[in-house]
Amino acid sequence: MRLLLVNPNVTGAMTEAMAAEARRFASPGTEVVTATAAFGTQYVEIRTEAAIAGHAVLEALAAHGAGCDAAIVAAFGDPGLAAAKEMMAVPVVGLTEAAVLAAWALGRRFAIVCLTPALGVWYRDAVEALGLAGRLVAVRPLDVAIPDIMRAKEQTRALLVAECRQAVERDGAEVVILGGGPLAGLAREAAGEIPVPALDGVSCAVRLAESLAALSPRAPGAESFARVAGKPSRGLSAALTRRVGSDVLAGNTGG
Amino acid sequence: MRLLLVNPNVTGAMTEAMAAEARRFASPGTEVVTATAAFGTQYVEIRTEAAIAGHAVLEALAAHGAGCDAAIVAAFGDPGLAAAKEMMAVPVVGLTEAAVLAAWALGRRFAIVCLTPALGVWYRDAVEALGLAGRLVAVRPLDVAIPDIMRAKEQTRALLVAECRQAVERDGAEVVILGGGPLAGLAREAAGEIPVPALDGVSCAVRLAESLAALSPRAPGAESFARVAGKPSRGLSAALTRRVGSDVLAGNTGG
Amino acid sequence: MRLLLVNPNVTGAMTEAMAAEARRFASPGTEVVTATAAFGTQYVEIRTEAAIAGHAVLEALAAHGAGCDAAIVAAFGDPGLAAAKEMMAVPVVGLTEAAVLAAWALGRRFAIVCLTPALGVWYRDAVEALGLAGRLVAVRPLDVAIPDIMRAKEQTRALLVAECRQAVERDGAEVVILGGGPLAGLAREAAGEIPVPALDGVSCAVRLAESLAALSPRAPGAESFARVAGKPSRGLSAALTRRVGSDVLAGNTGG
Amino acid sequence: MRLLLVNPNVTGAMTEAMAAEARRFASPGTEVVTATAAFGTQYVEIRTEAAIAGHAVLEALAAHGAGCDAAIVAAFGDPGLAAAKEMMAVPVVGLTEAAVLAAWALGRRFAIVCLTPALGVWYRDAVEALGLAGRLVAVRPLDVAIPDIMRAKEQTRALLVAECRQAVERDGAEVVILGGGPLAGLAREAAGEIPVPALDGVSCAVRLAESLAALSPRAPGAESFARVAGKPSRGLSAALTRRVGSDVLAGNTGG
Amino acid sequence: MRLLLVNPNVTGAMTEAMAAEARRFASPGTEVVTATAAFGTQYVEIRTEAAIAGHAVLEALAAHGAGCDAAIVAAFGDPGLAAAKEMMAVPVVGLTEAAVLAAWALGRRFAIVCLTPALGVWYRDAVEALGLAGRLVAVRPLDVAIPDIMRAKEQTRALLVAECRQAVERDGAEVVILGGGPLAGLAREAAGEIPVPALDGVSCAVRLAESLAALSPRAPGAESFARVAGKPSRGLSAALTRRVGSDVLAGNTGG
Amino acid sequence: MRLLLVNPNVTGAMTEAMAAEARRFASPGTEVVTATAAFGTQYVEIRTEAAIAGHAVLEALAAHGAGCDAAIVAAFGDPGLAAAKEMMAVPVVGLTEAAVLAAWALGRRFAIVCLTPALGVWYRDAVEALGLAGRLVAVRPLDVAIPDIMRAKEQTRALLVAECRQAVERDGAEVVILGGGPLAGLAREAAGEIPVPALDGVSCAVRLAESLAALSPRAPGAESFARVAGKPSRGLSAALTRRVGSDVLAGNTGG
Repeated sequence: MRLLLVNPNVTGAMTEAMAAEARRFASPGTEVVTATAAFGTQYVEIRTEAAIAGHAVLEALAAHGAGCDAAIVAAFGDPGLAAAKEMMAVPVVGLTEAAVLAAWALGRRFAIVCLTPALGVWYRDAVEALGLAGRLVAVRPLDVAIPDIMRAKEQTRALLVAECRQAVERDGAEVVILGGGPLAGLAREAAGEIPVPALDGVSCAVRLAESLAALSPRAPGAESFARVAGKPSRGLSAALTRRVGSDVLAGNTGG
Repeated sequence: MRLLLVNPNVTGAMTEAMAAEARRFASPGTEVVTATAAFGTQYVEIRTEAAIAGHAVLEALAAHGAGCDAAIVAAFGDPGLAAAKEMMAVPVVGLTEAAVLAAWALGRRFAIVCLTPALGVWYRDAVEALGLAGRLVAVRPLDVAIPDIMRAKEQTRALLVAECRQAVERDGAEVVILGGGPLAGLAREAAGEIPVPALDGVSCAVRLAESLAALSPRAPGAESFARVAGKPSRGLSAALTRRVGSDVLAGNTGG
Repeated sequence: MRLLLVNPNVTGAMTEAMAAEARRFASPGTEVVTATAAFGTQYVEIRTEAAIAGHAVLEALAAHGAGCDAAIVAAFGDPGLAAAKEMMAVPVVGLTEAAVLAAWALGRRFAIVCLTPALGVWYRDAVEALGLAGRLVAVRPLDVAIPDIMRAKEQTRALLVAECRQAVERDGAEVVILGGGPLAGLAREAAGEIPVPALDGVSCAVRLAESLAALSPRAPGAESFARVAGKPSRGLSAALTRRVGSDVLAGNTGG
Repeated sequence: MRLLLVNPNVTGAMTEAMAAEARRFASPGTEVVTATAAFGTQYVEIRTEAAIAGHAVLEALAAHGAGCDAAIVAAFGDPGLAAAKEMMAVPVVGLTEAAVLAAWALGRRFAIVCLTPALGVWYRDAVEALGLAGRLVAVRPLDVAIPDIMRAKEQTRALLVAECRQAVERDGAEVVILGGGPLAGLAREAAGEIPVPALDGVSCAVRLAESLAALSPRAPGAESFARVAGKPSRGLSAALTRRVGSDVLAGNTGG
Repeated sequence: MRLLLVNPNVTGAMTEAMAAEARRFASPGTEVVTATAAFGTQYVEIRTEAAIAGHAVLEALAAHGAGCDAAIVAAFGDPGLAAAKEMMAVPVVGLTEAAVLAAWALGRRFAIVCLTPALGVWYRDAVEALGLAGRLVAVRPLDVAIPDIMRAKEQTRALLVAECRQAVERDGAEVVILGGGPLAGLAREAAGEIPVPALDGVSCAVRLAESLAALSPRAPGAESFARVAGKPSRGLSAALTRRVGSDVLAGNTGG
Repeated sequence: MRLLLVNPNVTGAMTEAMAAEARRFASPGTEVVTATAAFGTQYVEIRTEAAIAGHAVLEALAAHGAGCDAAIVAAFGDPGLAAAKEMMAVPVVGLTEAAVLAAWALGRRFAIVCLTPALGVWYRDAVEALGLAGRLVAVRPLDVAIPDIMRAKEQTRALLVAECRQAVERDGAEVVILGGGPLAGLAREAAGEIPVPALDGVSCAVRLAESLAALSPRAPGAESFARVAGKPSRGLSAALTRRVGSDVLAGNTGG
C-alpha cells in the first residue's frame, strides 16, 4: 500500500526525519511517500499556526493524495485532521489521534510529555477535541528555549525522560506519549528507561493508517464531498478547487 | 469603538447583508467595518471549507485588524475562532459562540435551526468544540437545495419558522437559534411567530463584542503571541508573517 | 432602558456600592434602579443564606420589577436566579452567570478568587449548577476574617491580587473572576496588576442584561407562569401572590 | 428514632397523606412527626414555587427540628434540600434524592412518571442538580388538568400506570419512579401492574433517613454553620435567626 | 428477613468479621447468613483477582441464595455485582455501591481511604463503573505491607485515621469512606476522631439491602434471566448451571 | 509474531470461525493460535455469562499465553478484558475495544448492530465501561430467536444489513460495527451494501493486537502483578495459581 505522510510544517528536514521513523514501523509492502506544507511556519506550536497549517494540509493532500491508500497528518496536534478525513476517500490519521488511541488500549491512564508550555496547551486541546481526554492524567511540558527544533530531541533527551518517569510516579500514568513530530523515535530509543509503555505519534500513526486501510477499503467516489453540492471558490490551488468546487470565481490560482 | 466584521466566505454581498444587520444592533458610537475572505468558497458548509476559511480569517484579521477594538468571525460555525482569539490583542467573537452564550442566559434548553444537513453537522461540532453542548437539545436542518445562498432566507422562511416551532413543541427548546450568517435578520423578523426567544448570530455577536471590549480592555502588546518566540515562515502574506514570524523563509508573498 | 439591580443581601450600603459600579458600565440611556432584600442576612455566604435570599429576590422582583426591561440578581452565587428567570417576562441575569459567560468568551480556562472558603464552596456550586464548570480551573479563596464586609475589598486588596496572579501562574487561568458583590470595581481597579483579563460580576451583568434586552424583547404576558395554572397560596406578599396564585388562602400578608 | 417530615407545600391534607405512607414503611421504633410549610403554594410545581418553598422548609426545620434524629423534605423536586442538609446537624433527605439513589441500586436505567409537563421539567432539573442524571432515560409527564391535587392519584391512576409501562417498553427503564408527593403509595399499590420495580419518594426517603441516622450519628454542635461566623439578619423568624445570625437587625419577626 | 452476605474472598475468618459488623447494624428481625467464595484468593486487591471473584460470587449466590430476601457482595470493589443483580430475583448490593450512595446523601464531596495503592486503583475503577465518581474528590491509600490482612485494621489504625483527616483538610471531603471489607467497624470505632461522617461498606450495605427488600419486593420468577433463553453450558456447578442453562454440555461438574 | 485468540465461549466451532477470519486479516508472519473457554456457556449474551467468561478467559490465558506476543479476548463485550490486560505482560485487546477504537478514527459517530436486545444492553455497557460511548449514536439489535448461533449470521444477514442502513440514515452513523463474534466476516462480506465503513471486532482486534505488539514490546517480568505481593489462593488451576499466588491453600486443582 501507498501511505502519504504530510508534514504540516514547512521544514523539509523534519519531513525526512519523520518519514525515516515511519518507514521503520511500516509493514513490508508499504511505501511511505511524503509532502511538506507549501506555506506556514517552521513548526506548529500554537493555535494560529495550527489554523494556517490546517489549510496547508488540505492543499498538500489535494496535490499529492491521488493514488494513496491512506494518509498521515504528521504534526502532533493534528492540524486540519477533521477536514482531511472528510475531504479524502481514504483513511487519514493524525499523530495525536493515533498515539492516544493506542494509549487507550494499553492502559487506563496516560500522560503526554512535550517540549514547551505552548505545545502542551495545544496538545491538550487536541485530545479534548478528539473527545479522548477522559484518561489523560497529565500534560508535562518542559520549559526550555528551542533554538533548533531539529536538534531538540537530542538536546533535551534527559529532561524528557525524567518527565516521563515523573508522569508514572506522580500522576499514575500507565502509558506515556512523547508528543511532537520532532521527537519521533525517542519513545523507541528510550523505552528501556521508562517503566511503562512509551509511544510516539509517527509510529502509532503508521500502524493505525495501515490497519484502517486494510479494515475498511472504501470505493473511490465515496468521499463525503459527494454529499454536498460543489461551490464556487476563489484563491485556491487548482487541485483544491477540484475538491470543493463546481465553478471557479475570479482569483483561483493556476496551481 | 471600531468593530471589524470578517466574513470567512468569499461572497461580498453576504458581507454587506451581515454588516447591515450588525449596524442595526450596534450601540451608538460603534463603527462596523468589514473584510471579506480573500480566498475560500462561496459559503462555508463543511469541515473542509471551514479549515480553508480558518486561514482566510487570520489573513483578514492580520490585514484589517489594526485599530479595531474587537472583531467578529461572521460565519456560523466559527471557522478559525480559537486561533483568531489567540492572535489578536482585542476580543474576537464568533456567531455560534455569541448566540449560544446568549441562549445559555435566556433558557435551559436551546435548539439550532439551519438550512442543510451538512450545516447541521458542522454547527453541532462547533457547539461541542466550545464545550457548550450541554443544553443543546436539537439541531434541526431543512433538507432543501440552495440555488442562491443570498435568497435562501426568503425562499425558506416558512420552513425555517416551522422548524423553530417544532423545536419548541417537540424538543422542549426554550430558546431557538437560527444558524447561518445568511439568515441574519430572520430571528428579528420572525420573532412574533416563534413562542420563545429567537436569536441569530450576527446581532448576538455585535453585542458580545461590544461588551467584552468594554469589560476587558487589554493593552497593546498583550497578544498571546508574546508568549512564544516568532518562527520563520513561508508562503504567508506580509501581514500574517508579521504576526507569526521572526524571519521569512523563501516564498513568502509580497502581500 | 430601565434595569433593576436586586441586592439579595439586606445591606443597603452594598446595594449602593454595586449600583455605582453598575452605572459606570451601563450604556447611555440605561437607568439603573435598585431594590434591597427585605429579609435575609447581611451578606450571603452559605447555602442556607442563599435559600432564604432566593425567596427574598422573588419578593423584590414582584414588588419592584414592573416597568423594568431587565433585572440583575446582584449577589455572586446567583441566589434564586433560575426561579427569577422563570417568573419574569424580561431577562434576569446573575453575577456569576454573567461573569462566567464572559470568561467563556475571553479564554479557555478561568479561575475565581474570593474572600472566604465558604464562599468558594458556594461559588463552585453555582458554576456547576449553571453547567459551566468545564473551564473552571480553580477557585481560590482567601481565608481571612471579615469584620466589615463593606471594607473587605480595600482591606484584602493585596491578597486578592496575589491570588489572581497565582491563578494565572499555577493554574493556567486565562481569565480571572473576582467573585463577590462587595468586590465590585476591583477587577477594573486592579486590571493593570493582573496579566490576564480580570472580570467582576456587576459590570458583566450590566452588559449582559442590556444585550439580552436588546436581542430578545419579549411581549408582556409571555411569562412562563402563563404555562401553568395559578395556585392558592399562603403567607406571601400581595405582589408575589399575584405572580403565583389564583386564590389566596388564609394567611397571606397584606404586603 | 424521631423523624420529621416537612411538607414544603402549604396543604395540610397532603402532609397527612404523606405521613401515613411514611409510617407504613417506617421501622418499629421510628416516630414520624410532621410540619407543614407556613407560607408558599398549595403544591410546588415550578422553580418559582420551589424557591419560595426552599425558604419555608428552612423555617419549618428551624421551628420543629429540635430533638429529631433525621428529617425529610417531602416534595418531589427537593426544594431547599442542599441548604437544609447544611443547616441541620442530623441527616436530611429529599424525595427525589431518596428515590433516585434507590433506583441507582436497583437497575441500570430509570424513568420518572409524573402529573404535568411543568413538574417534569422541575424533576429533571432536580435530578441533574443532584448529579445523578446519568441513568435517567426518560421523564414521562401526563398532560392533564389537576382540579384537585389530593385526588389526582386516583383520578389519573390508569394513565400513570400506562406511562410506567411505556417507560419500560420504549425507554428500556429497569426501574420506574412515580414522582410527586401526592402520588405517595401508588408505587406500592400498582406494583403488580408494572413489570419492573416501582418506587415512590416518601417510602424511599423514610428508609434512607433511617439508614443515615443509624450509620452516621453526628454529635450536636457539628452543624456546618459552625464553620462560618453568624451574621446579622432581618425579617426572619426567631428560630431561623438563631440558626444564621449573631445579631438581629431591625425587622426580625417575633416568630 | 433473611440476608445473605457473600464474601468474594476465600478467607473464612474475614467472612465472620464482616458478618459480625453486619449483625450490629441489622434491624431486629433480620437474619444474616453467610457464604464464602469456594475459589479465589485470600483477599481481592487487583482486577485479576476481582474477575475470578466475580465468578465465585455467582457460584455462591447460586448455591446459597435460595430463600434469601436480599444479598450483599461483601468485598469493597464489588466484584461480580452487576452480574449478581441480573441473576438474582432479590436485591443484591455491594460494599462500594452502598457506601458511595450513602455518601452521596450525606455530603457534596467524598473521599475513600484504603490500605494499598493497588486497592486504591481498583476502588476508583469501581466507583467510576457505578457512574458515581462525580463527587469523589480523592482516593487516599496507605502504602504499607500487609502481612496479615485480618490484623491490618488494628495495625494501621492511626495511619488510616490520619488519612481521613487529610481528606477533610486538604481535599475538602465532607464524607470519608473507609474502603475494604477487612476494615469493617473502623468507621464506627473511629467516628469521634474524624470531623465528618465516616462510613464503611458493610454497615451501609446491610441498611441498603434491607431498604431495597422492603421497598421493592419482587415476585419469584422475575429474574432478568427470564428475558433470554437458557443456553447449554460446561464446567459450571449444578446450581449455576440451573441459573444459566437449558442443557448441559459434557464437563459440567456435579457440584 | 504469535497471536493467541481466546474464545470466552465454550463453543469450539465458533473459535474456528473467528480464527479463520483473524487469519484473513493477519499480516504475513503472524501466527494465530487459539484457546476455547474451558467452562461457561455456549455464547455470552448477558452480564452473568460475561462474569463467568471473565474467569474462563484468565484461565485460558494462564494456560496458553506463554510464548505469545499478544492476545485477543474474542467475544464482543470483552469479558475479563481489564483483568487480562493487567495479568499479561503482552498486549491483550478485546473485540469491542478494537472495533470502537477503529470507529473512533474513521468517523465522528458510530452505531452497533447486533442479534438480540440482551446483547445490545451488554454491548452498550461494554462501550461505556471503556469510556468510549461519547460517539456511540445507536445500538440497534434485532429481536429474533437464535436457534443456532453458528448459523445466525447467514440466517439474519438481510435483517442485519437493513439495520446498518437504518443506522446511517436515521442515526447519522458514519461508521457501523457489526457486534458479535459469530458475525465475524459479515462486515467484509456486506461492505458493498452499507454506505459507510463497516467493521467487525475480529479483524479490528487482529490489527490492533499486531500494532500494539510492534509499538510497545515490553520486557518479560513487567507484568503489573509484580506490583503486588502474591496471595494464597484456592480452587484455581495450577497455571492461574502461579499468576496470582505465592502459596496454595487447600483445594487448588491440579490443572
